[in-house]
Amino acid sequence: MEQSRVRTARDEANSPSSLLVKFGEDKPLRLESGAILSPFQIAYQTVGELNADRSNAILICHALTGDQHVANTHPVTGKPGWWEMLVGPGKPIDTNRFFVICSNVIGGCMGSSGPATVNPATGKAYGLDFPVITIGDMVRAQSMLVDCLGIDQLLAVVGGSMGGMQVLEWAHSFPERVRNAIPIATGARHTAQNIAFHEVGRQAVMADPDWCGGDYIAQGRHPAKGLAVARMGAHITYLSEAALHRKFGRNLQDRNQITFGFDADFQIESYLRHQGFTFVDRFDANSYLYLTRAMDYFDLAAEHNGRLADAFKGTKTRFCVVSFTSDWLFPTEESRMVVHALNAAGASVSFVEIESDKGHDAFLLDEPEFHAAVRGFINAAARQMGIGE
Amino acid sequence: MEQSRVRTARDEANSPSSLLVKFGEDKPLRLESGAILSPFQIAYQTVGELNADRSNAILICHALTGDQHVANTHPVTGKPGWWEMLVGPGKPIDTNRFFVICSNVIGGCMGSSGPATVNPATGKAYGLDFPVITIGDMVRAQSMLVDCLGIDQLLAVVGGSMGGMQVLEWAHSFPERVRNAIPIATGARHTAQNIAFHEVGRQAVMADPDWCGGDYIAQGRHPAKGLAVARMGAHITYLSEAALHRKFGRNLQDRNQITFGFDADFQIESYLRHQGFTFVDRFDANSYLYLTRAMDYFDLAAEHNGRLADAFKGTKTRFCVVSFTSDWLFPTEESRMVVHALNAAGASVSFVEIESDKGHDAFLLDEPEFHAAVRGFINAAARQMGIGE
Repeated sequence: MEQSRVRTARDEANSPSSLLVKFGEDKPLRLESGAILSPFQIAYQTVGELNADRSNAILICHALTGDQHVANTHPVTGKPGWWEMLVGPGKPIDTNRFFVICSNVIGGCMGSSGPATVNPATGKAYGLDFPVITIGDMVRAQSMLVDCLGIDQLLAVVGGSMGGMQVLEWAHSFPERVRNAIPIATGARHTAQNIAFHEVGRQAVMADPDWCGGDYIAQGRHPAKGLAVARMGAHITYLSEAALHRKFGRNLQDRNQITFGFDADFQIESYLRHQGFTFVDRFDANSYLYLTRAMDYFDLAAEHNGRLADAFKGTKTRFCVVSFTSDWLFPTEESRMVVHALNAAGASVSFVEIESDKGHDAFLLDEPEFHAAVRGFINAAARQMGIGE
Repeated sequence: MEQSRVRTARDEANSPSSLLVKFGEDKPLRLESGAILSPFQIAYQTVGELNADRSNAILICHALTGDQHVANTHPVTGKPGWWEMLVGPGKPIDTNRFFVICSNVIGGCMGSSGPATVNPATGKAYGLDFPVITIGDMVRAQSMLVDCLGIDQLLAVVGGSMGGMQVLEWAHSFPERVRNAIPIATGARHTAQNIAFHEVGRQAVMADPDWCGGDYIAQGRHPAKGLAVARMGAHITYLSEAALHRKFGRNLQDRNQITFGFDADFQIESYLRHQGFTFVDRFDANSYLYLTRAMDYFDLAAEHNGRLADAFKGTKTRFCVVSFTSDWLFPTEESRMVVHALNAAGASVSFVEIESDKGHDAFLLDEPEFHAAVRGFINAAARQMGIGE
């Protein structure tokens, strides 16, 4: 019996198993940098059915290392969708009632155009020839996808972390197209500390000689060690001191004694190494550079002389802003700044701070209070549109 | 005119410009791992004069990347001593009155035996053949140095961070020799989060192909990139979000516009890169592995079935425990655990939490309230011994 072959990350980058929309040279993506990306493509997944009046579409925006596989088995890892706790039949974002869209961001590595994609001009992977993109660029690409799907207005745009940045950008750039917005564990700008952590991650990747100045695909190499170090460092920031202490403390590995060496004596070391080394099998190192950079550049207030409220002037979008008490990457204070700006702009806004010791990653984990908040907000939004339970 | 030659880190590791005491095979250092380090040497500096009754000696213990050059110009960097704000004539630790000793820790790279030292058995640098050492080993080596200097009892042992761990270890292992102890910005154990950050740093070093399995000195190479990444990541943990925001925020470099690339656009990026690349000129990569490992292994309560108070049972040492409000590497809670244990052990203990937004590094910076607290405690200690002002 032949064993079924698992698809590799490289397969997905260039011939994704997802739905695909290709934008030809008549539909270029004009980037904030001034560059033009054309042709380009977006890989996406949908769940549920679009209703007759096209009013039940919910767009989900993924985080830095997420992808479009929000509620389906991941084609490379074989793991469940990353938000199946929140998205599915009967779930808070109920796919029996809503048409859920999730696309891989531009710059990503799961089928949308990114640095691992073959550059049609050269026939080899873009590498660093791929233009630097922003959160705004990701969102404009998504809006072209939503156009293609024949949807004028989204019932809701939902996302955490970098996904939450996209939610805020959607509400800013396309206020008429976003009825409801749920930015989760995010902020309207990347802080100095967050830029700093990203910069260390990028330096770790670029320090790896197998990175080859970004040209590793063409040269048949893979900066796995550098990318693993980047992931390990980042992973610490996704958790909380309390969660690490509860989960690992100073617990030792199997032998229950220290070895006086540099192997993984502590469980936390072994856990981090595992996080690092599994990540490199499903993610592209250059995508990691591009997406962290897009997050660093994000600063909604900057376009409005520092007045964040002006980014949302006259908005009719209804917001539900969510933060988690132990999230130190995007602490509640960053969400509160968004809420204050929305209030100042006269927007309709709910703000929920969820008590959790799980840190930033809480938005991906089993947090019943968070899930109940999303369910309540989405149900109210559906009622308003006359979408039955 | 001939330019004066600056000494290199490699010069200092094997023929230090500091004072040196060599322990021959008759004076081996028995390590906690069971290994024996022999022969070995300690490089140290002293400031001030030992008084006639040998009662005015203060031992200063340095932090992870510190060294013995506490109050004198650094022989490699040419910078002032790292604690000149606190140590010197008329300073809180007044070298007109006290005899100050500071030695490079075992495992370090400024002249005390460490992985960069030539192994007399092979004639080449130890590298990973150097035995793994602990905070306890560092302190036992220091106690042999103090013996050599003819000092029975220290007026005080003072140190921050890894230095503070040594202070606690001194009070635990040699209670009769320590009249007063000032552990600063430290804890009685390394937490899971701190182990995690150290592990990422070690992985960054070891991922560098120039690390050569630890044998880079013999092979004439230098894992500078990996060590720089480790330093950059660690440096973030030494600061605070507030300090980073105040100092850098999202400020851009010279041109005041983003470049849509991977150069250092933000001032924080440029600052971190500078921190990384200057560090590698003065520090040994293997020492970084050994010293972070020693910190990870530190857990004073573990030897006493988790009862930290038992580590200080019956102590007559007087303690002044210092923490800083914005230190998230060794938060006040870790100091409070030490204070509770000392109280439970019936020790004399003062506890000062200094209000500061400078993070962990506050202990190295201009913090007048902190300096006043040290001055007051040391003066009281001196008065008790009849040492004049």
